[in-house]
Amino acid sequence: MAVRFPFTQWISPRQPPEVERLLKSAATREGVLSLAGGLPGEDLFPRAALAEALEEVMREHGREALQYQWPEGYGPLREQVAAMLRDRGVEVAQDELLITSGAQQALDLLARLLLRPGDALGIESPTYVAAIEVFGLQRPRMVPLARGEDGLDLAAVRALVRGAEKSLLYLAPAGHNPSGSSLSAEACESLVELSRAHDALVIEDDAYGRIQFEAPRRPLRSYPGAEERVILVGTFSKALTPGLRVGWIVAPPAVTAQLVLLKGIADLQTNTLGQMALSSYLERHDLDAHVARCLPRYRERRDAMLQSLAEHMPAEVRWTRPTCGFSVWVTLPEALAAEALLARAIEAGVAFEPGAAFFPVETPRNYLRLSFSNQTPDRIAEAVARLGKSLRAL
Amino acid sequence: MAVRFPFTQWISPRQPPEVERLLKSAATREGVLSLAGGLPGEDLFPRAALAEALEEVMREHGREALQYQWPEGYGPLREQVAAMLRDRGVEVAQDELLITSGAQQALDLLARLLLRPGDALGIESPTYVAAIEVFGLQRPRMVPLARGEDGLDLAAVRALVRGAEKSLLYLAPAGHNPSGSSLSAEACESLVELSRAHDALVIEDDAYGRIQFEAPRRPLRSYPGAEERVILVGTFSKALTPGLRVGWIVAPPAVTAQLVLLKGIADLQTNTLGQMALSSYLERHDLDAHVARCLPRYRERRDAMLQSLAEHMPAEVRWTRPTCGFSVWVTLPEALAAEALLARAIEAGVAFEPGAAFFPVETPRNYLRLSFSNQTPDRIAEAVARLGKSLRAL
Repeated sequence: MAVRFPFTQWISPRQPPEVERLLKSAATREGVLSLAGGLPGEDLFPRAALAEALEEVMREHGREALQYQWPEGYGPLREQVAAMLRDRGVEVAQDELLITSGAQQALDLLARLLLRPGDALGIESPTYVAAIEVFGLQRPRMVPLARGEDGLDLAAVRALVRGAEKSLLYLAPAGHNPSGSSLSAEACESLVELSRAHDALVIEDDAYGRIQFEAPRRPLRSYPGAEERVILVGTFSKALTPGLRVGWIVAPPAVTAQLVLLKGIADLQTNTLGQMALSSYLERHDLDAHVARCLPRYRERRDAMLQSLAEHMPAEVRWTRPTCGFSVWVTLPEALAAEALLARAIEAGVAFEPGAAFFPVETPRNYLRLSFSNQTPDRIAEAVARLGKSLRAL
Repeated sequence: MAVRFPFTQWISPRQPPEVERLLKSAATREGVLSLAGGLPGEDLFPRAALAEALEEVMREHGREALQYQWPEGYGPLREQVAAMLRDRGVEVAQDELLITSGAQQALDLLARLLLRPGDALGIESPTYVAAIEVFGLQRPRMVPLARGEDGLDLAAVRALVRGAEKSLLYLAPAGHNPSGSSLSAEACESLVELSRAHDALVIEDDAYGRIQFEAPRRPLRSYPGAEERVILVGTFSKALTPGLRVGWIVAPPAVTAQLVLLKGIADLQTNTLGQMALSSYLERHDLDAHVARCLPRYRERRDAMLQSLAEHMPAEVRWTRPTCGFSVWVTLPEALAAEALLARAIEAGVAFEPGAAFFPVETPRNYLRLSFSNQTPDRIAEAVARLGKSLRAL
């Protein structure tokens, strides 16, 4: 008998299969400069300090580091994360904090706990691709909220929260991907006010919150009145390292209690060694100082990209000037499709992410995201020159 | 306005709140000997070898180890896991293998992909507690299949697969927890035959498959005809270390392709460093040899427990003689409740897991699980003596 598998739902790749194939082949192809992915700069990882931390943990606490642990996470690390957040204006009690396997799992747990099929989900458009995917698994009704360099469409937010008895919003107020922008303090205050007035919950994605080129930004959760309405999701992935897969959720205690149970069911716990190594690193090193060392390098890379874009892009192409994050968001003339450009660009030796996947509902084809974070300025200049050439040839 | 949280479902702790509280307090209480949890022996972790592997990875491949990676897992580790499984009779192609954040996440991904609300799920009774929980999230109709030292109720399996157009079974053929037993080759052959004849899928939990005190056991997946019907879930947690959270799924390619996408959405990937460290360890060390060193120690602990039980238990108490795994499964007289015993036992300085949570449907109160894996023989003797005293006092 032929085997049919009774899948609960059919999961499609985030990009069309052809784009997936192209990006995967580009990743291993000699001579292709990649501007794809939201990867932190590999040359900026504090490798020696993390190696020392690992060595210390294995030497002093090897048995504990290799053993099972409680689902809520390693106690000392939870305190350190809470202290880091306090420095950014977010008060966190211990029963409000859960350590997760990266911010992505944080979003997954929240989606599973808070989103039923058909529920309205307010979601920025464009936004982080894998957030669209993870919320999409719950089959909500996605309500796009236009978001760009100039801010968030607060009228759309207002219409959503007023029209629904309860609503859930997924936002990246302090560090939006892919636009590379943060919301003003006024917009943040309005969001808190709206969520309080209309019984809405906000999931705040703060993954890029510390990667700020102009001034530090406080998370939405730090605004007065946000404690009961804003659930904060954070991670070490952008500011330190993604390879250990350690992130967190800060939520009201009633929500956190359920999340801890769900986390224990989903994967028992976040890896013990990674948590203990991060804790040991944070005990001996100042993460703020590390971030302060990285920011000028990321700024340099951003500037190299902006300058190269100005040099090499045809006149009809527009792009953002990111004040935060890892990427520039590029708009092609409407008649051009980023997917078609990608095939050509990879031939010319440069890869990037087509932008359609960043849109939760309508998926325009004429956008692309160029990440500068994991390339040196001269390679960025070369990559953008190649891209310009491919574009002109199109 | 008071905040009500719109949870999609209410998640209850695996044990009643009072038992949870008792177990958690016992875990940090001075002088309490713990026989709870399925913890590998901490003294048996190859700490020096793993520390060396970590050091080597950070020195030689630090950038890669701290960076993001593909959802399917680290290539060399996937090949090593496939080779390990081949040694146990399971042929694995690369497109059939996914690395997961432990076996628990493997079960979670499979449950989410294969189980709809109301679907029939054949599940051993008793079985692994967190499997009941993770499948329970999908709200299936659980069909208990009696399982004990004397095997699995194949008549119940037959009735289930015959009565359903499609059915899903969760079984631990080679290393059942909590009974500490494995199925005979004949029973395995019958299971494969039934699954083929009636279009059933089996999720095989092989977590304890290598912890065998009598003879090695082949996974169900190794039996002829099983490739398209049996999905194997494995882990390094019991044979090597649980702290890195690395497990795997072996499934038909069509299922694995969907699982890889779901894994990418659920948490992007399993932690890079842990995967690379395990790969480096496996390159330099023989996992079989490590397991062969551990087994006599676990057998010693099991024997210490069996002997102490014979010495200290009242005549009405019965228990298994495990041929595999980490625990002995104890049956009290029906009038006695394990929860009541636990409170008393912790006072006397010994903790264990009440057995009700191991049953998927009916939850009898007179069972308990005693793990010998993470205690030395003399501590086991003392713990069981304390338990016998508490029991007589009850």
